[in-house]
Amino acid sequence: MERSWEEELLIADLRQTAHRDGQKDPYVVELGDDAAVYPTPWAHGVACADQLVEGVHFDLAYLSLSDVGFKAVTVNLSDLAAMGAQPDRILCTIAAPKTVAVAELIDGVRQACRRFDVELVGGDLSRGSEIVVSVSAIGHLGDHELPLRRDRGRPGDAIAVTRALGAAAAGLRSLRANGSHHYPRLPHEEQHARPLPRIEEGRAALIGGASGAMDISDGFALDLHRLADLSDVGFVIDHVPVDPAATEEEALFGGEDYELIITTPHPNQLERTFRERGLPPPLVIGRIVADRAVRTHASLPLPRRGYLH
Amino acid sequence: MERSWEEELLIADLRQTAHRDGQKDPYVVELGDDAAVYPTPWAHGVACADQLVEGVHFDLAYLSLSDVGFKAVTVNLSDLAAMGAQPDRILCTIAAPKTVAVAELIDGVRQACRRFDVELVGGDLSRGSEIVVSVSAIGHLGDHELPLRRDRGRPGDAIAVTRALGAAAAGLRSLRANGSHHYPRLPHEEQHARPLPRIEEGRAALIGGASGAMDISDGFALDLHRLADLSDVGFVIDHVPVDPAATEEEALFGGEDYELIITTPHPNQLERTFRERGLPPPLVIGRIVADRAVRTHASLPLPRRGYLH
Repeated sequence: MERSWEEELLIADLRQTAHRDGQKDPYVVELGDDAAVYPTPWAHGVACADQLVEGVHFDLAYLSLSDVGFKAVTVNLSDLAAMGAQPDRILCTIAAPKTVAVAELIDGVRQACRRFDVELVGGDLSRGSEIVVSVSAIGHLGDHELPLRRDRGRPGDAIAVTRALGAAAAGLRSLRANGSHHYPRLPHEEQHARPLPRIEEGRAALIGGASGAMDISDGFALDLHRLADLSDVGFVIDHVPVDPAATEEEALFGGEDYELIITTPHPNQLERTFRERGLPPPLVIGRIVADRAVRTHASLPLPRRGYLH
Repeated sequence: MERSWEEELLIADLRQTAHRDGQKDPYVVELGDDAAVYPTPWAHGVACADQLVEGVHFDLAYLSLSDVGFKAVTVNLSDLAAMGAQPDRILCTIAAPKTVAVAELIDGVRQACRRFDVELVGGDLSRGSEIVVSVSAIGHLGDHELPLRRDRGRPGDAIAVTRALGAAAAGLRSLRANGSHHYPRLPHEEQHARPLPRIEEGRAALIGGASGAMDISDGFALDLHRLADLSDVGFVIDHVPVDPAATEEEALFGGEDYELIITTPHPNQLERTFRERGLPPPLVIGRIVADRAVRTHASLPLPRRGYLH
């Protein structure tokens, strides 16, 4: 289930491009992390791009056009959140058949922008045989702030998540079972349809001394394996907190929760920082170990699988 | 032939979003100009996004996948050039059927990045039923540099273009007539397949005191009408310089030349600045007039039509 065709090529290519001049700025992240970080004369820019494709990432039987627009923005803001960055603005291109009510889709984009205080500064609209919404998000890190990278988990670090997991997968299951477009939706249905980027949590993790972070897009298990691969470590997970609406299977292997996985040598400081900022304290669920062959959940090997499109 | 569905909605929406707080920074451009300009603590950021959709913007009978990648980048860099901005980096998302040799497409993206010294900092690759390449480009203006806007043409300004026109339309005609993928291609075929952004020319125009600029994407006539609309003026065009391979019809109404239309009260200074920088001097072809009803070419009304997708 590892992504093969999906992104490897582009990620490999990105790496090659970014290193073309042999430059090695310690801030510059391009190893397939959540977002790229680049120096500017002022601070560090952080940017990412992601798209939602009809029939691949969403089905209009379960999501409204407004949901699609909202989600196309928030999955990108989630990638910035996973770097500890503050989002500033987005650009958005939309390809869609002429029969699609694009105004509704754009309205969803705008709702997400308002809610998370980012500015929509540019875009393009074109005909296409299916809906493709592509968003680029641009944010920044403050002076002297180091991004929360995926490759910085160190043996002994605590592993935490920002909320219980599995809600988005449970929501998708529920939306499928209950048919299309009933309102009000249940909280876990809402989490699938309109995921919320954990921007404040990412900032708190960075300020609270976390060593690294990533957001859960393809499922906790698969994403944690990736973090461990890049950090060259193993992990011992005692348990995962399961959303009340979800199964443990959904919490481990369901995708699109967009909660953050945070690694930190200072879990008490992390919790204190979250509390000071009025955020739900992160849930410590295990720890990083040096042996990269050790990758367990409840003392059993954690399968490397997830939710891929 | 005016674009109706294509971009009006999104452009209107952009404007509304950007003005949501009643902010009125004189630098901030969001009136459907080539790119958006926004303040940063350092200088002014400039950003735009545009996409190429298979069957709408290109046909693989005439363009290679590498051309498509190259062109997706350069049409965006052209929008930054039209603001007088210096491009810095891009993000790129690609949706494509699994049968497509995406590596070739990405190679074209990289060729454009190398050639124009921009960095590919992020992206995403996904399945899709047709090829959609979406690029966001980010650049900057120096301290105290004002962007070259479309709405700044003033009565008495000279109107200039950076090269003879029509080559891209002639190139498309030639590629269609001569069948697919013959190499080497003729110069006008190359200009259709791999348009070059006039970045240096845009910088020279800004530094040389131009009042405004835009790039020619949908055809000289239509784009000039748009500039005149936004500037609330008319124009008198004496003649358009026609590329040797093109017809006058193609020069006036063919699209995708990606040359710049420049307005300036100081045509001699503009020419001097271009020469000092080793650039072909801009060709003065007419002037802005106050009466917005006067819009002529060779003393006849210039039809408001162009090349729309």
